Amino acid sequence: MAIISNASEGIFLRPQDVIRKKRDGETLTREEIKFFADGVARGSLADYQASALLMAIFLRGMSARETAHLTEAMLHSGDVLDFSEIERPKVDKHSTGGVGDKTSLILAPLVACCGAAVPMISGRGLGHTGGTLDKLESIAGYRVHLSVEEFRRVLKHVGFAMMGQTAEIAPADKKLYALRDATATVEAIPLIVASIMSKKMAAGLDALVLDVKTGSGAFMSQEEDAGELARALVATGNSFGVHTEALITDMSQPLGRTVGNAIEVRECIDILRSEEDERARPVKELSLELAARMIALCGVEASLDAARAKVQRSLESGDALECFRRNVEAQGGDPRVADEPRQLLPLTEREVRVESTRTGFIVGVDTAEVGNAIASIGGGRLRIEDEIDPAVGFAAEVKIGDEVSEGDTLGLLYCRDEAQAQTARERIRAAYKISGEHTHASTLIKEVIKA
Amino acid sequence: MAIISNASEGIFLRPQDVIRKKRDGETLTREEIKFFADGVARGSLADYQASALLMAIFLRGMSARETAHLTEAMLHSGDVLDFSEIERPKVDKHSTGGVGDKTSLILAPLVACCGAAVPMISGRGLGHTGGTLDKLESIAGYRVHLSVEEFRRVLKHVGFAMMGQTAEIAPADKKLYALRDATATVEAIPLIVASIMSKKMAAGLDALVLDVKTGSGAFMSQEEDAGELARALVATGNSFGVHTEALITDMSQPLGRTVGNAIEVRECIDILRSEEDERARPVKELSLELAARMIALCGVEASLDAARAKVQRSLESGDALECFRRNVEAQGGDPRVADEPRQLLPLTEREVRVESTRTGFIVGVDTAEVGNAIASIGGGRLRIEDEIDPAVGFAAEVKIGDEVSEGDTLGLLYCRDEAQAQTARERIRAAYKISGEHTHASTLIKEVIKA
Repeated sequence: MAIISNASEGIFLRPQDVIRKKRDGETLTREEIKFFADGVARGSLADYQASALLMAIFLRGMSARETAHLTEAMLHSGDVLDFSEIERPKVDKHSTGGVGDKTSLILAPLVACCGAAVPMISGRGLGHTGGTLDKLESIAGYRVHLSVEEFRRVLKHVGFAMMGQTAEIAPADKKLYALRDATATVEAIPLIVASIMSKKMAAGLDALVLDVKTGSGAFMSQEEDAGELARALVATGNSFGVHTEALITDMSQPLGRTVGNAIEVRECIDILRSEEDERARPVKELSLELAARMIALCGVEASLDAARAKVQRSLESGDALECFRRNVEAQGGDPRVADEPRQLLPLTEREVRVESTRTGFIVGVDTAEVGNAIASIGGGRLRIEDEIDPAVGFAAEVKIGDEVSEGDTLGLLYCRDEAQAQTARERIRAAYKISGEHTHASTLIKEVIKA
Repeated sequence: MAIISNASEGIFLRPQDVIRKKRDGETLTREEIKFFADGVARGSLADYQASALLMAIFLRGMSARETAHLTEAMLHSGDVLDFSEIERPKVDKHSTGGVGDKTSLILAPLVACCGAAVPMISGRGLGHTGGTLDKLESIAGYRVHLSVEEFRRVLKHVGFAMMGQTAEIAPADKKLYALRDATATVEAIPLIVASIMSKKMAAGLDALVLDVKTGSGAFMSQEEDAGELARALVATGNSFGVHTEALITDMSQPLGRTVGNAIEVRECIDILRSEEDERARPVKELSLELAARMIALCGVEASLDAARAKVQRSLESGDALECFRRNVEAQGGDPRVADEPRQLLPLTEREVRVESTRTGFIVGVDTAEVGNAIASIGGGRLRIEDEIDPAVGFAAEVKIGDEVSEGDTLGLLYCRDEAQAQTARERIRAAYKISGEHTHASTLIKEVIKA
């Protein structure tokens, strides 16, 4: 095995020595971690060596300092955006993903109206989780593939801009993620943190609020794991000088009423128009709270209470709706969607009632299963290359704690195909757990984690 | 990620699910292990998935049953030799490797004379350890690359035959070993066991004696680790119906007097001629004991004592020397080497004295360092593709427990180049630890492990 040199640093490292060190539970140095991340990004480290190290990291862990080094190395594997000519504070939110999680579409215009800039680089849905880009693309004409210059222009003129990951941002992450997916090394906290934070730190932020989901629809179903992840994310963000805090929030049932793409955008616009269904209340509450924390954390308001009041006014005044409309227009979409969401956002004609076969209380939801059922009818992706059907989805009629009788509607399923509808209906029906004993829904915001 | 099917078994497995299972410390099934080994052998499993699983196995371990399944799968990745037309019992010995470990050349003719057949498939030296094939090749004309038919013929007519691993025997092992070497997953007991035993089980043996080395020149320097490895080897061999036992033997100093290639063959022939130096005594003792255990284990003699007596007679009668001579001739070498080892085996003219710079007792030897020093002057390989110089080597004058004065000779170094000689001399000098307090050498045979 040839010795690979990192000539620019004058340091000579052998991949197997770095792997051995982590394998034996030792702490890797900044140089060793950089050697790994650069090797992955440049292709100078063999995939089989990278994956052995990934498994060693999975099983042996990484310290906060090692995680920060990994984040830094992955960040510097690509371009770092510079929005310093935009004078407003730059702030973003990142969610670890869930079902019906649509807060970005609400909070981005709220925060932009309040005086901060939100350069949001979002992802696609995969598996049971939805993605902001997919939801936005259900608006006719909306473009998420912007050049950095276009993104900058929208951000400057609208106050928020939404785009997908580019090949230039943290390229090491893209390669590492593909390897992790193929080698069962996805669910390792240091790797998750470095993946999230290397991309977020590339956007030139002043502040970042993390929404770490926990419960049956979350990546981290256990609250303890979510807490560990949240603390690691907050520590890493702050180590980069970005004011970072995290909320641990409930994902034990779909967030709000709807799951899908166009149907979720409808729910967001309803909220921005203050016309939402009562069952959309948790999305609204969480979006407002996240927006307020973003505003406070980036220094636009001195106190969280003042920030909350400001965000509330932006919503009630219609300013946020207006800001949303301007973003849609700036990114190529039909701005009338803000006024006529029911006319302009697609929904299948086929509407299938999901009925309860029991009488009792809703005591739990297998939320990932609901997400997977919607993905199976085209609302999400089983594989990264799958196409999304924006018009399919689900609107829940019930939530945890509600009482239902046999034959009551649990929700409405929107689907193209009758056979698919039957299967998805059965899956969703089975995902709602009904019992004779009443249970309360979990608190929406479970914990706040600060630096 | 595509689902990979194992059509012949009608079983569908995804590599990442198998990796995840081991990652989480679960036990893999026979089918899952076969899927892995076959995937490696056929190239249908990506190297990066194989290496992630190797690291998970390294850190999570494998049960005795999993280890046997892995051995079986690797064995069946290639050809299994069938020597059933040779009526004698087939028995072999395998050593985990050391410095000056030359017992194969002595015990193979001893065992063959006693009525068993020894189909010995040996390896090359690498790093600080020597290899039987390299030693044999220092005999002019000796061929270790035999076809299976040639090997069979020599085995039948001489009673023992020596050859290198062929591409057809356990091909999964060759690929896995290269991956393990590049990913710091070499030192995992289940992987070591499967690597050794898949090759040994391919030789159609009735019995196998393992010589598991421990001490500063061994792969497993700690006796506890050597014991664990020995027990795993013995359990696996017996699970295949091969009578298997292991000795744990001392490698805290070079075995016998010499380290090198031609120089070690000289020492072996001296022993077969009963003309050995007193300092060669431990090699002789260990070779006789291993040979006796082989004879007893494969059923040629009913008791170990009877086997010891028989082996002793074969040595003293000169029968073993004669058998060795016939093997050399059958494998293309010059048989006169058995009579005139000093004339026919090369040794460099340059002889460099390694002197003690202190007065005191030899209390320890960094044996791996001695091996590495000899490898550095051409007596071994730093890389697998290096060429061996058969004529270089070292002859120790002292052993642990001996008293030395400043200026006394620790040993004689045989080397081509003056500059290299100086460096190697310093390394060997530093490897011999001298102290004012006396210490006894370790027992040669530390433990016997039976099924």
